[in-house]
Amino acid sequence: MERNTVTLFETIVTLLENKRYATLRDILSTMNPVDIAGVFEDIQDEKTAVLFRLLPKELAAEAFVEMDEDTQELLIHGFSDTELKEVIDELYVDDAVDIIEEMPANVVKRILRQADPDVRKQINEILKYPEDCAGSIMTTEFVRLRPKMTVEEAIKRIRRTGIDKETIYTCYVADEQSRLIGIVTIKSLLLADEDDTIEDLMETNVISVNTLDDQENVVQVFNKYNFLAVPVVDKENRLVGIVTVDDAIDVMEEEATEDIQKVAAITPTTDKPYDKLGAFEIFKSRIPWLLILMISATFTGMIITSFESQLDACIVLTAFIPMLMGTAGNSGAQSSVTIIRSLSLEEIEFKDILKVMFKESRVSLLCGVVLAIANFAKMLLIDGLMLHNESITIPVALVVSLTLILTIFFAKLLGCALPMLIKKIGFDPAVVASPVITTIVDTLCVFIYFEIATSILGI
Amino acid sequence: MERNTVTLFETIVTLLENKRYATLRDILSTMNPVDIAGVFEDIQDEKTAVLFRLLPKELAAEAFVEMDEDTQELLIHGFSDTELKEVIDELYVDDAVDIIEEMPANVVKRILRQADPDVRKQINEILKYPEDCAGSIMTTEFVRLRPKMTVEEAIKRIRRTGIDKETIYTCYVADEQSRLIGIVTIKSLLLADEDDTIEDLMETNVISVNTLDDQENVVQVFNKYNFLAVPVVDKENRLVGIVTVDDAIDVMEEEATEDIQKVAAITPTTDKPYDKLGAFEIFKSRIPWLLILMISATFTGMIITSFESQLDACIVLTAFIPMLMGTAGNSGAQSSVTIIRSLSLEEIEFKDILKVMFKESRVSLLCGVVLAIANFAKMLLIDGLMLHNESITIPVALVVSLTLILTIFFAKLLGCALPMLIKKIGFDPAVVASPVITTIVDTLCVFIYFEIATSILGI
Repeated sequence: MERNTVTLFETIVTLLENKRYATLRDILSTMNPVDIAGVFEDIQDEKTAVLFRLLPKELAAEAFVEMDEDTQELLIHGFSDTELKEVIDELYVDDAVDIIEEMPANVVKRILRQADPDVRKQINEILKYPEDCAGSIMTTEFVRLRPKMTVEEAIKRIRRTGIDKETIYTCYVADEQSRLIGIVTIKSLLLADEDDTIEDLMETNVISVNTLDDQENVVQVFNKYNFLAVPVVDKENRLVGIVTVDDAIDVMEEEATEDIQKVAAITPTTDKPYDKLGAFEIFKSRIPWLLILMISATFTGMIITSFESQLDACIVLTAFIPMLMGTAGNSGAQSSVTIIRSLSLEEIEFKDILKVMFKESRVSLLCGVVLAIANFAKMLLIDGLMLHNESITIPVALVVSLTLILTIFFAKLLGCALPMLIKKIGFDPAVVASPVITTIVDTLCVFIYFEIATSILGI
Repeated sequence: MERNTVTLFETIVTLLENKRYATLRDILSTMNPVDIAGVFEDIQDEKTAVLFRLLPKELAAEAFVEMDEDTQELLIHGFSDTELKEVIDELYVDDAVDIIEEMPANVVKRILRQADPDVRKQINEILKYPEDCAGSIMTTEFVRLRPKMTVEEAIKRIRRTGIDKETIYTCYVADEQSRLIGIVTIKSLLLADEDDTIEDLMETNVISVNTLDDQENVVQVFNKYNFLAVPVVDKENRLVGIVTVDDAIDVMEEEATEDIQKVAAITPTTDKPYDKLGAFEIFKSRIPWLLILMISATFTGMIITSFESQLDACIVLTAFIPMLMGTAGNSGAQSSVTIIRSLSLEEIEFKDILKVMFKESRVSLLCGVVLAIANFAKMLLIDGLMLHNESITIPVALVVSLTLILTIFFAKLLGCALPMLIKKIGFDPAVVASPVITTIVDTLCVFIYFEIATSILGI
């Protein structure tokens, strides 16, 4: 697929240079809006204005929505007021809001000035919700039915007004006070008798979200129930909009990227793709955690300094610090990342903490014992016998292996308990994602190591 | 929502104990299938069979699909052959396949024996595709239209056959050889004239996936284009099935979990949620990488051993090893995780490698210089002046700070280049996810540290 797009792209550029507009229009008309958007993004200069005018109106608007903000801004600057109005009239309200949120103030003003008063009102309605809540990702264009309508009347209404609706597949039934009382799918309408009333047909046990719910909760609803759209209601249970599954998928990918970034000590600051980010923007998202973790790692250094005399007496101990710290960190990271993910998928909750800690402690003993045995054998056979390192004695191997068992145990317990506690007190459990837990566990590991060494080796 | 489910659950259990079946039936009938499944999973004993018989047939099947495999198996064991047949008849083919894939052989045989011959054929058709490919997650129940049909005929056909189809919102147009030639949405059918032909109405530039495509590619198609379903064709472009967006979402979450697990050195072995996994299963998914990384960390230890005489001469250097290793590892992890995610979202590809390396090298210099300055100041002011550690001299602080700059530089370059090279040669870039890159970078870091120390401190 990728290869085809490239070849087609070159053809389009050549045709554009040679001003073969009729041919270009034919080609573009057969293309998917997403792919057209890709072509515009790759061209990225004033010539795109000419190309845009070749597109049929509806396709033009569909492609416009899919473009990145730079390309959109470039196009808007080239638009006459009439052209801008034509595009805006074709947009769904939620898409218009997405575009407005990314544009500089002067462009926003121009867009709002060209929008129909009614549309402008709807846009302003959505814009007033805080970012990342259900209200900010919903659309106000959905099919609203009355309980007393017959199936025939409902289908007529959908035929008349459906063209402007983002989805017609789920219709929403509201009473006189605009309160959501049921939903009915177009499938059930089509399969029902024409004289049935909506009231008889509708599903009354409706699952909805609140305008101010976090977008993550909205995604959870889509994950749990296989919906194509979810109704959004205000505090008085009045139906104000819907979130469609395509927008939920975007949020899902965004949240997954954020989760992954947190595991890698990156502050999620932007939803731009990597290829659109400048070096300085990337730097800004990476430096905070690097600084924090660098300072925290100092504690591990301080512990080592305080055991300097023991180290002097038995310098071979130094060689195992990286392995011990690495293993402890990895063990802790495995638990913390697993638990953070399970919490976010709602597989476990705080009341399970003891069960989880018991499970993790069993896992940690299994892991610890296997690693300790492997390490003990390796130190004596490879380091000692094969490489003739005379400092590796049975007591030294014992110190390292015992440290493994103990640190893995504590690493896994902390790794599972900390995220759950942090979520319980109302913070994002991802703040103790792998790099943070690794740093904590490192310090603990070095401390345990020297304590065991002191008592077993008598140094 | 969560709280409501719990209270309702207790009510249902009490009613079940008191054999208030009529009331129970009323309650269950108003519930969403997903929530009903939750109730069955929480009860998990023979009593569920009684409860299941109270459900209306269609709802029973819908709830059955949503249950976990243990609950399903328990129920199946309690079913008479007739009851089993009733449930299977109500299932969509792809859901039946999902259930069969998780059941032990004797249950599978029983299920297949009860299925209609036609359904059995379709199930076996899907079962023959390898796991994780498009064919294995598709359904064969979709609406198939002919190009010469009128809109009226098409809608009649949908009304007649739609009840058994997983989605009626997108209909697929195939020619006499079953080759996919177009798609038409129910929205366009409803908004069109009754006499229009499907041929005139259908979208001919159809994006489809191949039966053997990886399910990750299928998800990419849903991500890129906002589809509700994607057609699946075989090698001869014959239409064999569709994948619906709800199944794509499941795959999406599964893949995101897998990506996150890889970043935390966990072998993704199963798609069971954490609360259903036994300690031994968790142990098995965690021990391989812990062992591999433990062995690899030995190299870092060997480098330290080879610089033992320098360490003896300047023992204070030991104290900074954890901080240097930690920072190097975190820097490398940031780059590798970012690049692995961007590769999987198709934001970058191999041909961008030089551009990416140039960008990462600029980011690394920014990060390196800031961290080096912060560290230099901290060592001299806090460790030296405030804590009166006399071993901390300007040359020592210089060694540590220079090591920071150099290792961050190499860590970020390796972190971005390795995943891209590994993907290029056909492996999963996630094999160099954060724990692996951390281990590689640790070794490099210790080596650079002692080389710089040797030359600046003359030890």
